[in-house]
Amino acid sequence: MPRKAKSNQDKVRYAVIGLGHIAQVAVLPAFAHAENSTLSALVSDDPEKLEKLGRKYRVKARYSYAEYEDCLGSGLVDAVYIALPNHLHREYTERAARAGVHVLCEKPLAVTEEDCLSMIRVAEENQVKLMVAYRLHFEEANLKAIDLVQGGRLGDPRLFDSVFTMTVKKGDIRLNPREQGGGPLYDIGIYCINAVRNLYGAEPMEVVAFSANNGDPRFLQCEETTSAILRFPGRERLAVFSCSFGAADVSSYRVVGTKGDLVMEPAYEYAEGLKQRVTVDGRTRERTFPKRDQFAPELISFSDCILTGNAPEPSGWEGLADVRVIRALYRSADSGQPVTLEPFSREDRPSLEQELRRPPVRKPELVNTEAPSE
Amino acid sequence: MPRKAKSNQDKVRYAVIGLGHIAQVAVLPAFAHAENSTLSALVSDDPEKLEKLGRKYRVKARYSYAEYEDCLGSGLVDAVYIALPNHLHREYTERAARAGVHVLCEKPLAVTEEDCLSMIRVAEENQVKLMVAYRLHFEEANLKAIDLVQGGRLGDPRLFDSVFTMTVKKGDIRLNPREQGGGPLYDIGIYCINAVRNLYGAEPMEVVAFSANNGDPRFLQCEETTSAILRFPGRERLAVFSCSFGAADVSSYRVVGTKGDLVMEPAYEYAEGLKQRVTVDGRTRERTFPKRDQFAPELISFSDCILTGNAPEPSGWEGLADVRVIRALYRSADSGQPVTLEPFSREDRPSLEQELRRPPVRKPELVNTEAPSE
Repeated sequence: MPRKAKSNQDKVRYAVIGLGHIAQVAVLPAFAHAENSTLSALVSDDPEKLEKLGRKYRVKARYSYAEYEDCLGSGLVDAVYIALPNHLHREYTERAARAGVHVLCEKPLAVTEEDCLSMIRVAEENQVKLMVAYRLHFEEANLKAIDLVQGGRLGDPRLFDSVFTMTVKKGDIRLNPREQGGGPLYDIGIYCINAVRNLYGAEPMEVVAFSANNGDPRFLQCEETTSAILRFPGRERLAVFSCSFGAADVSSYRVVGTKGDLVMEPAYEYAEGLKQRVTVDGRTRERTFPKRDQFAPELISFSDCILTGNAPEPSGWEGLADVRVIRALYRSADSGQPVTLEPFSREDRPSLEQELRRPPVRKPELVNTEAPSE
Repeated sequence: MPRKAKSNQDKVRYAVIGLGHIAQVAVLPAFAHAENSTLSALVSDDPEKLEKLGRKYRVKARYSYAEYEDCLGSGLVDAVYIALPNHLHREYTERAARAGVHVLCEKPLAVTEEDCLSMIRVAEENQVKLMVAYRLHFEEANLKAIDLVQGGRLGDPRLFDSVFTMTVKKGDIRLNPREQGGGPLYDIGIYCINAVRNLYGAEPMEVVAFSANNGDPRFLQCEETTSAILRFPGRERLAVFSCSFGAADVSSYRVVGTKGDLVMEPAYEYAEGLKQRVTVDGRTRERTFPKRDQFAPELISFSDCILTGNAPEPSGWEGLADVRVIRALYRSADSGQPVTLEPFSREDRPSLEQELRRPPVRKPELVNTEAPSE
């Protein structure tokens, strides 16, 4: 039943699932610059969006969410780009995979580690490719920063410090409850986590977080701000970051090494060029990277993997690695305790799956209360 | 016996105690610009320094540490500027106070809260003035930042983020054990703590810290790096900072409010001008403050208090407030647990003194080991 993309096709045909902000401003326009990719179908529950965007991008195949299976089975699509609310990523990924359709999924990959692992497993079982849409993995400024840090230009990297804040207005789905993947950690904190994991080329071993709330009704279901410290192994590198939906726009990271430091500001944007400032031995060099489409290179890379059979990167495991840290930070913020993370690599899969089968840790403040009723 | 400064004097006569780096590059030269202050005596155990600096600044009254009482009783000095290693601040402050000599003491005021409280008490009992040499309290760029934040220019301040790092070489007294006030928290982290306390105009209620060590032999007696998160009361403001003796020079803080953000970089220097960048509603204004002597204004302010009878600011209580946070951060870094701080103000003195009389909390990892031998 699963229908594999044919390697004799020269373009991979995509359905974009979910037509919210990111789809409209970034994903749909990117197909014009992705020569090996073509936009073939749109999926949304909003008939107006389907009509308007269908006309704009000349896409005749339009489906509601109820018609998702029809879309997957239409023979018109080889891959889906999932731009749905975070808690729907797993379901729509696994349904696509079971229909033999490849999946390029927005970050965060999913809300829980269990969800991420299941998505990875279902994609493997159905022999479809799964990639997480980390656009900065295709952005020159960010890649140069990683090269520079890992190449030793700053000496031994000792510290990462990042701030990613913005004002999110009432009614935005990013203010959804945590169980639906709402809150600043899932939406923007993930950029800080992904940045430092890739800059250090390592996984954190211990984390601690404080969350805060300014009392605004916008933050009844999710936290306003989270600040975190992450400890990395080896020569004990530290990383701190803060993310907030209740403060003015800031998007910045800094890496300080034994010989110099690097500042990226803006660091995480796609609507403007990124700026890099490198100071080594007291000499500063600034470089502005022109604004570039960060979404077309994702499509090109994923389509190339589908056409050639190569493994996509960032893979589902990269998605899981960040979600694992986000969940540890929430456990820390809830419990008031630092959280130790087990060593992590895709080779650890059996122990990771075993770990996830353990019952969740109860919050410490509940430990000494009376036994819950049966 | 105590000899009070005469209010009919027009200049306060100082002995500078300790002739290390800060005394040589900053304190001694500042007297030339402090019209109500005069350098009258030098105290050091290094005869060469005494000779060389005595000649340079035309100071004939020169004393070893063993002759400190002679200096205090000489009738030549009204005040001391204490620029000694941190663990000697208390002893040299209290001896001066008991001799009726006023004290301007380098930061940190002392190594422990107990030391700070005792110094405050002894100064009061002997009716001498005690001030902590927080030079940035007299620096225009920093004062403008505080005005701007407290005046609401950034809206409601939500986040403070700061990095203060430098490379400290082997043999530097700042690498002393913590018990002697060594380590980056006492020396440079204190600037971050003092900055955010004054920018927010509040005291932290909960803190957490991770310390790290790169394994270099320089860091056998104190930590290399500490990163910290501080929670402030009210509308739950967060602050994060990192300080390190094992990384390249960075001196920066940022305050992000609901309407905009302010960056100071360099933020904590005295050897160069400070830069301020304020972005409100998307519009950025940069301002460079020319390098100014930050030490002469301290002398002028303290001398003015001595001459007029006014209370000096920053007072001993300001010094205690920072040391209290540093000690809580060390407790957190040692125990791996966040630490809650009691509400703090100088009116709380009886409860604070009571609190300090309690036996120190043992590290959690010791709790379940066998009882210590008698």
